[in-house]
Amino acid sequence: MLDIIASVDIGATKITASLCNRDGIIIRIYQRTRLTGDEGSIPDQVKELVDTCFVKARLEKDKLIAVGISTAGPFQRMDGKLHLVSPNICGGMTPERGVLPNSWRSVPIEKELSKHFKNLVIQNDAVSGVMAERTFGAGKGYENLLYVTWSTGIGTGAFVDGKLIRGKNGNAPHGGHVFLGDTGPVCGCGNTCDLEAVASGTAIALQYGGGATTAEVFEAYSRGDAKAKKVIQEAATYFARGLASINSVLDTKMIVIGGSVFLNNRDLLLPLVKEEFYRSFPALSRDVLFATSELGEYLGDIAAISLVIPEDWIKEWRTTKPWERAPDTIYLDG
Amino acid sequence: MLDIIASVDIGATKITASLCNRDGIIIRIYQRTRLTGDEGSIPDQVKELVDTCFVKARLEKDKLIAVGISTAGPFQRMDGKLHLVSPNICGGMTPERGVLPNSWRSVPIEKELSKHFKNLVIQNDAVSGVMAERTFGAGKGYENLLYVTWSTGIGTGAFVDGKLIRGKNGNAPHGGHVFLGDTGPVCGCGNTCDLEAVASGTAIALQYGGGATTAEVFEAYSRGDAKAKKVIQEAATYFARGLASINSVLDTKMIVIGGSVFLNNRDLLLPLVKEEFYRSFPALSRDVLFATSELGEYLGDIAAISLVIPEDWIKEWRTTKPWERAPDTIYLDG
Repeated sequence: MLDIIASVDIGATKITASLCNRDGIIIRIYQRTRLTGDEGSIPDQVKELVDTCFVKARLEKDKLIAVGISTAGPFQRMDGKLHLVSPNICGGMTPERGVLPNSWRSVPIEKELSKHFKNLVIQNDAVSGVMAERTFGAGKGYENLLYVTWSTGIGTGAFVDGKLIRGKNGNAPHGGHVFLGDTGPVCGCGNTCDLEAVASGTAIALQYGGGATTAEVFEAYSRGDAKAKKVIQEAATYFARGLASINSVLDTKMIVIGGSVFLNNRDLLLPLVKEEFYRSFPALSRDVLFATSELGEYLGDIAAISLVIPEDWIKEWRTTKPWERAPDTIYLDG
Repeated sequence: MLDIIASVDIGATKITASLCNRDGIIIRIYQRTRLTGDEGSIPDQVKELVDTCFVKARLEKDKLIAVGISTAGPFQRMDGKLHLVSPNICGGMTPERGVLPNSWRSVPIEKELSKHFKNLVIQNDAVSGVMAERTFGAGKGYENLLYVTWSTGIGTGAFVDGKLIRGKNGNAPHGGHVFLGDTGPVCGCGNTCDLEAVASGTAIALQYGGGATTAEVFEAYSRGDAKAKKVIQEAATYFARGLASINSVLDTKMIVIGGSVFLNNRDLLLPLVKEEFYRSFPALSRDVLFATSELGEYLGDIAAISLVIPEDWIKEWRTTKPWERAPDTIYLDG
């Protein structure tokens, strides 16, 4: 029997859990994130999902050697353990918005999961994303690498001088929260006019208004809708300025962009982003390269896997790309 | 005869050069920066100033073991060597401003000085500033440390996870160029409304107008001048937001602030900065500490010294603080 690793990707809307061995991905299950109950709700759901993977795959848990958790952030360290303090998960952080069905102020993710799993590694999803891109994707070989996910929110992860940067609470680089203006939309985090507030998928839908989804705004753009064009061009301009700000701090070489907003609209967005980015301070911007995430819909899984994958599996996985022949996802009811 | 190290601090207006041995600072000379002649003008001036230190101190150059250069940035790497591409030094970068008496597009600082000096270390002045603060100043013991100089311009240097961050061209973290708005003053770098354009000493003087110097704007504030109050409060607000943006990228623990604008007006500025900083996303801002640079007018020298000081001098220097009993500066004509 081969060693098994488990990977879990926690988002505000869904959690996916997978098991892998050195031959590839064995099973992948999907469930909506449980945002009700007490602060232990999400850690309990993660434990259940990993257990369910073992049951459905008819495997024994004694072969589990490590668990990688990639999760929406940010974190706060309390009593030495990482707690989730994400305004999109913890209703107690944003009671004035009144959209989350809980009053959690933090989720004790590390404390609860470390009781249950050994060799547990927990990272912000964009930080694990940059691990994935550097290990298996478009960032291979770059010592100075920024990964950006442009999705419902905007997250970033980075290697600087060949090292993954973490910061005091593991929140570096939380680039979605750089300020880009004085007045304008308010972010879920409370900041006015930060990158996420003006350029995320959520921001695009809100700026367009009328209850349109982000995808519908892009459809309207392709039909020649002037308002959609304005909203999307503004978002792309802000996104580029946000990247320029982050690059001025990190002096990066390669920026890999992923996330559903970008990947679904790459041919439209990439030229807009590059044009505005290279307008910023040339001495800092001119040597920077752009690439598109190559890991597609499995980025979240590969991200969590990258946190704990044994060194001696990597070379083979780079060739076989097991995420391209992953088994069908099993959708569980909540 | 004791080993000697040389330190040079290159700014857009002046260059200081010093010699030290393990007992302390032996000599310090000061000269206005030569911004005329060809691209080799500043490297030549640096060589001359170090030579002049040896002549005036009546010391032999064969005891020189290393040279630390702290300089205004940013850098660009050409043929593997660092070149200065500073818009405040290279007139060829900003011909439209027409204020610099040269047409240099870059200064071959490393190429020229490495012919002349062995064990040469060149760093951006705020990067060497954070080295100085972590070795001898208010940043001792911090693994996640940001140093900010709030002066004519705004520069930053940082340790993340215990490592000095450099980036691909040694420009990390060039935090003065994070964007803070869409419209407003234009920075020397070409960015509109970046941190340096809206909060630096230069920005404060320009916003007040009428030919007032930065110091005169602060004097006007202390006399109750309403316009000065507005200008300075806006600059402090922008400065705090810039720090919040940089902190969101680096997840730092301690921010040490130095530079003439801050040090001359600390009691006024620090409360304004802290109030605005802690308003930003609490999960990222709440654990951050602030301190004032303790190295005073010698920061630039200590910064350059910190780049090359032998490990076994440090403990003694932390106790004896030789910069507090440095010899009188010798002012040389240009």
